[in-house]
Amino acid sequence: MTTSKLANISSPKDIKGLSLKELEALAEEIRATILQQVSKHGGHLSSSLGTVELALALHYVYDTPNDILIWDVGHQAYAHKLLTGRYEKFSTMRQYKGISGYPKMSESPYDAFGVGHASTSISAALGYAVGRDIAQKDNQVIAVIGDGSMTGGMVFEALNNSRQTKNLTIILNDNKMSISPSVGAFSKYLSKLSVKHNRSLEELVKFLRSIPEHVGGKLKELMEGSKLAFENISNPGQFFRDLSVRYLGPFDGHNLQELIETLKDIKDMQDVCLIHILTQKGKGYKLATTNPTKWHGADPFHIEDGSVILEKPRQTLTSVFGKTLLTLARQDKKIVGITAAMPDGCGLSILKDEPELANRIFDVGIAEEHAVTFAAGLACAGFTPVVAIYSSFLQRAYDQIVHDVALQKLPVVFILDRAGLVGSDGPTHHGALDLSYLRTIPDIVIMAPSDENEMRDMIYTATQHKEGPIALRYPRAITYTNDIRTEFSALPIGKFRMVRKGKKVLLIGVGFLLAKCLDAAGVLAQKGVEPTIIDARFIKPLDIEAYKELFKSHSIVATVEDNSITGGFGSAIAEILAEMQNPPRLIRIGLPDSFVGQGEIDELREELGLTGQGIADRILSKAPTGSA
Amino acid sequence: MTTSKLANISSPKDIKGLSLKELEALAEEIRATILQQVSKHGGHLSSSLGTVELALALHYVYDTPNDILIWDVGHQAYAHKLLTGRYEKFSTMRQYKGISGYPKMSESPYDAFGVGHASTSISAALGYAVGRDIAQKDNQVIAVIGDGSMTGGMVFEALNNSRQTKNLTIILNDNKMSISPSVGAFSKYLSKLSVKHNRSLEELVKFLRSIPEHVGGKLKELMEGSKLAFENISNPGQFFRDLSVRYLGPFDGHNLQELIETLKDIKDMQDVCLIHILTQKGKGYKLATTNPTKWHGADPFHIEDGSVILEKPRQTLTSVFGKTLLTLARQDKKIVGITAAMPDGCGLSILKDEPELANRIFDVGIAEEHAVTFAAGLACAGFTPVVAIYSSFLQRAYDQIVHDVALQKLPVVFILDRAGLVGSDGPTHHGALDLSYLRTIPDIVIMAPSDENEMRDMIYTATQHKEGPIALRYPRAITYTNDIRTEFSALPIGKFRMVRKGKKVLLIGVGFLLAKCLDAAGVLAQKGVEPTIIDARFIKPLDIEAYKELFKSHSIVATVEDNSITGGFGSAIAEILAEMQNPPRLIRIGLPDSFVGQGEIDELREELGLTGQGIADRILSKAPTGSA
Repeated sequence: MTTSKLANISSPKDIKGLSLKELEALAEEIRATILQQVSKHGGHLSSSLGTVELALALHYVYDTPNDILIWDVGHQAYAHKLLTGRYEKFSTMRQYKGISGYPKMSESPYDAFGVGHASTSISAALGYAVGRDIAQKDNQVIAVIGDGSMTGGMVFEALNNSRQTKNLTIILNDNKMSISPSVGAFSKYLSKLSVKHNRSLEELVKFLRSIPEHVGGKLKELMEGSKLAFENISNPGQFFRDLSVRYLGPFDGHNLQELIETLKDIKDMQDVCLIHILTQKGKGYKLATTNPTKWHGADPFHIEDGSVILEKPRQTLTSVFGKTLLTLARQDKKIVGITAAMPDGCGLSILKDEPELANRIFDVGIAEEHAVTFAAGLACAGFTPVVAIYSSFLQRAYDQIVHDVALQKLPVVFILDRAGLVGSDGPTHHGALDLSYLRTIPDIVIMAPSDENEMRDMIYTATQHKEGPIALRYPRAITYTNDIRTEFSALPIGKFRMVRKGKKVLLIGVGFLLAKCLDAAGVLAQKGVEPTIIDARFIKPLDIEAYKELFKSHSIVATVEDNSITGGFGSAIAEILAEMQNPPRLIRIGLPDSFVGQGEIDELREELGLTGQGIADRILSKAPTGSA
Repeated sequence: MTTSKLANISSPKDIKGLSLKELEALAEEIRATILQQVSKHGGHLSSSLGTVELALALHYVYDTPNDILIWDVGHQAYAHKLLTGRYEKFSTMRQYKGISGYPKMSESPYDAFGVGHASTSISAALGYAVGRDIAQKDNQVIAVIGDGSMTGGMVFEALNNSRQTKNLTIILNDNKMSISPSVGAFSKYLSKLSVKHNRSLEELVKFLRSIPEHVGGKLKELMEGSKLAFENISNPGQFFRDLSVRYLGPFDGHNLQELIETLKDIKDMQDVCLIHILTQKGKGYKLATTNPTKWHGADPFHIEDGSVILEKPRQTLTSVFGKTLLTLARQDKKIVGITAAMPDGCGLSILKDEPELANRIFDVGIAEEHAVTFAAGLACAGFTPVVAIYSSFLQRAYDQIVHDVALQKLPVVFILDRAGLVGSDGPTHHGALDLSYLRTIPDIVIMAPSDENEMRDMIYTATQHKEGPIALRYPRAITYTNDIRTEFSALPIGKFRMVRKGKKVLLIGVGFLLAKCLDAAGVLAQKGVEPTIIDARFIKPLDIEAYKELFKSHSIVATVEDNSITGGFGSAIAEILAEMQNPPRLIRIGLPDSFVGQGEIDELREELGLTGQGIADRILSKAPTGSA
């Protein structure tokens, strides 16, 4: 590693003097470093391999961090990290206490804006640019955004406001992909631009303009009147110009020389520009270019053949959902699946792959707001829409769930994957708030399964529920069980399940954390405490009378959930207890009311006390042995 | 009224046989009816006066409710209501137990989708259309959307997905206004379309096509190569065609004949079309056309001269905010104001009107998501952004507050006007959830003032707070006080204010509902109960130790808030109490965990028991006289 050029780069200043050849060699070393790192520890591979030249060109041409550089989503920013003083720590990326897999303001002054969710970069960059204008400074502001992120409506909102500054550079990193292939009309539009279909028109315009005046008076007259229109058609990118953004491109995003020259050209231009560059997701690693969706986020793998390093065969909860919905959708023609740019991540791909179901599965792009209101429309038309969106991304559609779905009591099913701690993606991606924000919504039903079979029953229950919205949340988890039932039963809404009757201490497990309650019972047994354990099943509504009855016979109640203790299930129980006379004491165990860092889920649970031992300790501290 | 044509129209079937002249006469009667109604009871005037011909033409041509008609936002749908069986009830509109001021599914089969918040209609219509396609039905689906609503990103998300159906009609009702004039590049683009600037180009294209082949071989050859481009430029609306939507227009939205013919033409076209019509906000009432912003929503007024029917001069809390921020922004050059299409409604207009502040006030359109992340960028650049958005509309930006602001601890100030019950706008507009959804967010400070002076101090406190986001919420209310201080004091974060020391019963008032606690104390005094009363001031964080100390000396605690009792301030107190030994009993008084209807705020509070008497009754039911 001592002969590494990259190891000697402690900041972008160190690349300013390099020749084109040296930069190109550096690009290769960066690629190899990213590939090594991701193959060992997992991470986002394809996107970052596609932006190596872009990151180099940007840091070569611009004066970061004085010039502001914002990456959208951020899983394409590994090269940026390597060039901005994080080579040494690169091997800690995405690990407990290590550097983040995303740009993060507290980590580096070169990370001008923290990201993780899509479509925010132009809005944030516009804030920086307007601030610069007010303060009469002269630094540059650059937002890098992928074609996938451009399917999010926020981007349109930002572009619509872009003329609030005089000077902003937007780099459209067009690799035809979000995590899966980009969808929608805008994506098709970009493809048209990429092939420069307007070239012959440009020639025509040039030719028409070359006609001497005396040749055709009428022609000339008409041309004058059409001047504005001609300006508009003389190069592509009209869509952006209609939004008052100057369009330049497309350029080859892997041609360092072209990129550097282009950026130099526009650097001192006082204008709002969009530079369209074409890149290849996975560039430089053949397996990734062949299947960029699979290689978007990778688990540790062998570089030679791409095989995954794993001890056991496994099944994810995501696939349990997919298979269950497949079964139900075959039986019930009214079931429609909706995903926001993540057919694979959310488990809907297997439905899309079945010809007779394909027309009932919709990928709307990174457009959670539209996804929910589109589902509301489908529900009005008599269908049972199943909206599958990760917990933290569904935050984008909070208003739509309230205003378009719940207020109208529409039977929309929400499937929240990645609820609770997600691991190495960290605080932007933890699904720490869904129980809290969903619980604020009137007339919604919220469920969390404690095992795969309960999960299947809940999916079934959800598709049968016609009185209003119903949500189901489960974590990012692997399951080894093969004991999956084939029949379904509808669960009674609001009822918990008694797991074990005990004395004095009541443990209420929410979802898969029921297992941790059982672990805690093992620890408690050694201290002579035999807790009652229940599986909450429902977070809203709750069978308040049944809960009150149970509370009367216990002196300590502990709620255990993989959600913030502020506003979550524990708060729901607190609301019940606070109205009782002589209630038992409550211990709310869950995620703290602060943002939790990254790491393996088990590491984080250990830190937070979300383990059998941790839960038992909390209970024993309130109920010393013998006095419980 | 018995000679009224309108009175005899019980459904759209009754207008199918009318002649153009009769329809035009009906339009006049509808306008007069709307003007009468709004002048008496208040309501949304300008928008509905602008869409009379459109509503007539749509119901004349289409077969509603079999054909699906969705109005965006819905304050332009009064004529639609009058034509669909609600003439008799029209005088009850926006009143307690009366019909809604917005389309509402439970009110009429002709209201295909409930609305209130902007930019949802195309998404919902697309859901209906796709459902129709799957079910292989053949009804039409029409979404009506204003140019103001088109500044919301959801619309772009929906347009990007519009090719998921083969058949959808979008009517762009372009009146150059949202509530205030529409902003942004897209609005400018629409203006260009309105003047048909491309007409001479059309002539040029026609001329070029007429050139015989033998005259200019080169010209012809180039033209063939440019065919696609020519198709694209031969009429305006390229922006929409780039999104695969067929554009038609612009048409005169007040010319019934043109509208009817156009709609008939496209009715049987199997395509996704956008029909651009130009209308005048306030059409038919001169005062409203002259000042459409003022007449967007009107209080009762004299039709002759537009003067408002009101007993007393008044000041709103909105204007207290505007004046306070004006004072602070003059002193502190870092303060920047941001509004989402409501400079008047949110009180920022007076800052915009002052030349030296104008460049620090931004209206971003109906784009709450962008507004918040734009503010985050400004905060990164060292500014103190003040984002003023109504409580229920800020729901749109929940994820941005979590992910872009709070996670990065950025000092963004959120000003939530219309928190709590808003009155006649009803359930879509009540700010019933802000304390609940904001409280889920780590590291945010949430305040609610109990009077104007405290409000001023809180605005000051917010602009001084640099540790992270801070929010301030207050209701839609009038104030008669002239006793407004000129100095500011920063309030200690998290501390409540002792208002009155009493015994056994503790009343905690949140914001302006403190006044109701004082009223309740009057009632309780007659029963010999002397409650302690505190002004919560802060909803998050809470000084838990101080609260616990206070709780120890009381046997009943009642929280009184203008927010849902699920997840709101009462839940925060329940969380504290549930961890105490022998806690006092809690009575959470606030809005129910269900959607509250429309009516005067006082009527609704009466219904919900949010009155001095209601509060006292709740307490006495738990604490009978003599035993408290």
